[in-house]
Amino acid sequence: MASTANPTPPEQDVPEEAVFALHRGGKIEVISRVPVRDRDDLSLAYTPGVAKVCLAIAARADSVYDYTWKSHTVAVVTDGSAVLGLGDIGAAASLPVMEGKALLFKQFGGVDAVPIALDCRSVADIVDTVTRIAPAFGGINLEDISAPRCFDIEQQLQARIDIPVFHDDQHGTAIVVLAALKNAARLTGRELGDLRVVVSGAGAAGLAVTRMLVAAGIGEIAVADSKGLLGPARTDLAGHKAQVAALTNAGRREGSLVEALAGADVFLGLSAGKVPPGAAATMAKDNFVFAMANPDPEIEPAEAARTAAVVATGRSDYPNQINNVLAFPGVFAGALRVRASRVTEAMKLAAADAIAAVVGDDLAADLVIPSVFDGRVGPAVAEAVARAAQDDGVARQPAG
Amino acid sequence: MASTANPTPPEQDVPEEAVFALHRGGKIEVISRVPVRDRDDLSLAYTPGVAKVCLAIAARADSVYDYTWKSHTVAVVTDGSAVLGLGDIGAAASLPVMEGKALLFKQFGGVDAVPIALDCRSVADIVDTVTRIAPAFGGINLEDISAPRCFDIEQQLQARIDIPVFHDDQHGTAIVVLAALKNAARLTGRELGDLRVVVSGAGAAGLAVTRMLVAAGIGEIAVADSKGLLGPARTDLAGHKAQVAALTNAGRREGSLVEALAGADVFLGLSAGKVPPGAAATMAKDNFVFAMANPDPEIEPAEAARTAAVVATGRSDYPNQINNVLAFPGVFAGALRVRASRVTEAMKLAAADAIAAVVGDDLAADLVIPSVFDGRVGPAVAEAVARAAQDDGVARQPAG
Repeated sequence: MASTANPTPPEQDVPEEAVFALHRGGKIEVISRVPVRDRDDLSLAYTPGVAKVCLAIAARADSVYDYTWKSHTVAVVTDGSAVLGLGDIGAAASLPVMEGKALLFKQFGGVDAVPIALDCRSVADIVDTVTRIAPAFGGINLEDISAPRCFDIEQQLQARIDIPVFHDDQHGTAIVVLAALKNAARLTGRELGDLRVVVSGAGAAGLAVTRMLVAAGIGEIAVADSKGLLGPARTDLAGHKAQVAALTNAGRREGSLVEALAGADVFLGLSAGKVPPGAAATMAKDNFVFAMANPDPEIEPAEAARTAAVVATGRSDYPNQINNVLAFPGVFAGALRVRASRVTEAMKLAAADAIAAVVGDDLAADLVIPSVFDGRVGPAVAEAVARAAQDDGVARQPAG
Repeated sequence: MASTANPTPPEQDVPEEAVFALHRGGKIEVISRVPVRDRDDLSLAYTPGVAKVCLAIAARADSVYDYTWKSHTVAVVTDGSAVLGLGDIGAAASLPVMEGKALLFKQFGGVDAVPIALDCRSVADIVDTVTRIAPAFGGINLEDISAPRCFDIEQQLQARIDIPVFHDDQHGTAIVVLAALKNAARLTGRELGDLRVVVSGAGAAGLAVTRMLVAAGIGEIAVADSKGLLGPARTDLAGHKAQVAALTNAGRREGSLVEALAGADVFLGLSAGKVPPGAAATMAKDNFVFAMANPDPEIEPAEAARTAAVVATGRSDYPNQINNVLAFPGVFAGALRVRASRVTEAMKLAAADAIAAVVGDDLAADLVIPSVFDGRVGPAVAEAVARAAQDDGVARQPAG
């Protein structure tokens, strides 16, 4: 099906001149939602009227959600250490991506987002800094922070603040992969428990996707990093990789990714590493290849399509684009709607189910995941996440 | 002239219901300046196009001003320790004021402003935190941070980052007071060097106004705190108060504010402390009373008007409102226009001159300072500040 390539030019051919022209002056701005025309307006929106609102919040802390932008605003926080496929380009250079993220938050979730590009690198400094700026925000979206620091930053930060902390590179990806996988299984008449999965990549996305598939009841799953499969035979593992190794590879497989692919049902590519030609053809019948590296998928979609039942990529010019934007705007919109204190596993699973459900009866090999521009996705995810937050007891107000 | 009271109700009588209704959901939002309608839009504003912009900034650091919102955006930073006249109400409760400030920045300076309400208090923590979040912003407006920490925070922070740091409670007030004082002197045919000034209040505003008037060549100036005049007889002074004591009170006066007022040309009220009735009448002929405490001026305007040539207050329902909004939007607009690295003394003096000049031939006892809604002020201040920045060598690009 990847051979049904889109007739428009491949996405990497974006005209440089148009890109820079569009970016001149930045992509976002802060505007007023109230009038500031005259003295009467100012006396309501600023002094002296504003003092009454300040005192109301001082008297009842949760009313900050009623009377400030906290109720609809998140910080998009990065240190610029793992930006797109560009790597460690630093805080300032990451800013165009964070502004782009803010566009997506607003367009697809109705959420206001503020780029916070941090000029610091240690886990402790990042956690301290975000803890200190948290009062004005209803959520923290961590973005493009390199592994393994991203895991510790998220965990430590969530332990210190009472608003959701969500590392999109981990959980946004995991949610969308799970949604697509559920629909691919449905298309081919299988359950998640029937599937043996091989994950390529043990970075932020690889490990998070793996954890989420385990939580969702995947049949068998093994993760490969550049040295081969994580498992009991590996004596070089520590920290998060060791934790994931202990959770996975029930078959105690050893060796290379290519060896593990033989007979596997699912390939999940979450690294830039190419898979040697021919390996895809060794997979089980009706296999799924999700080759999500951008711009160069780990397995050529045309090659994968020769033997796979479903092929997905990270690119917008092929069918089945695995794109985080299907998840994060709705996840935060739902969390903010109920003023959630965190994002739980159940909220993420609910988001995946909601995304998968949008496809409905249109399910097909080239439509296991909705289009980014399907306007039903954001509201459906928000609704499901808000209800799951309420059910999980992390909501400050009812889902309504 | 204060008896020419405005026929509309006094400003403290703002209807509570209207205030809370207006604040529901907050006063500001983040919006997109570019379209996000389809895949082509996303390929320019987000991946893959955005990567080209990131790499351009990584290659040439200053181009972050060309291609991100840094060029027009400031952080409004507080710790909630000295909010309006409410005192230490904390970070969250200060947020409505910071959002109000953002409205004013946009309306009067075309500057985008992001509220940053800090959940920390030590000078070191605040300086560290703001240093780390600085990359995304073109300037830092410190707001409602209590003295004496505010002085050290501003100095230490400016030493560490290369964008302007401006504590509005200090310098915004100082600029507008100087502008009004210059026009009052012009109205009565005097020079600043002819005037003996008594300042009530040795907090952030009192000390900053005093320093600025010294720099502007005021004749004689003495500052009183709650214990009386700062000067050589005071053995209890340290830090910033001691520094200002050494710069001022050339007449080596001792004793109370009331004693110092006898024969003085100017009273500047920058505290909430009331001046006893009758004291104003002991001042020199053609004196100026700027009683800026809100909502209760240190000297009743009606009483002051019996013997003063010019009366100013901090209130919008009397003539001659001394309001920082005449300064800070234009100061940052001008600094951002030339991508300044700091706000120098010359830039502040230029701002004061620009504000004073707007009054022009309309100068009168009840018009020594323009109205907050005079649309000429912001652009005039921005222009003057940009040129002064260029002349002072702190501009990254020409004033144009």
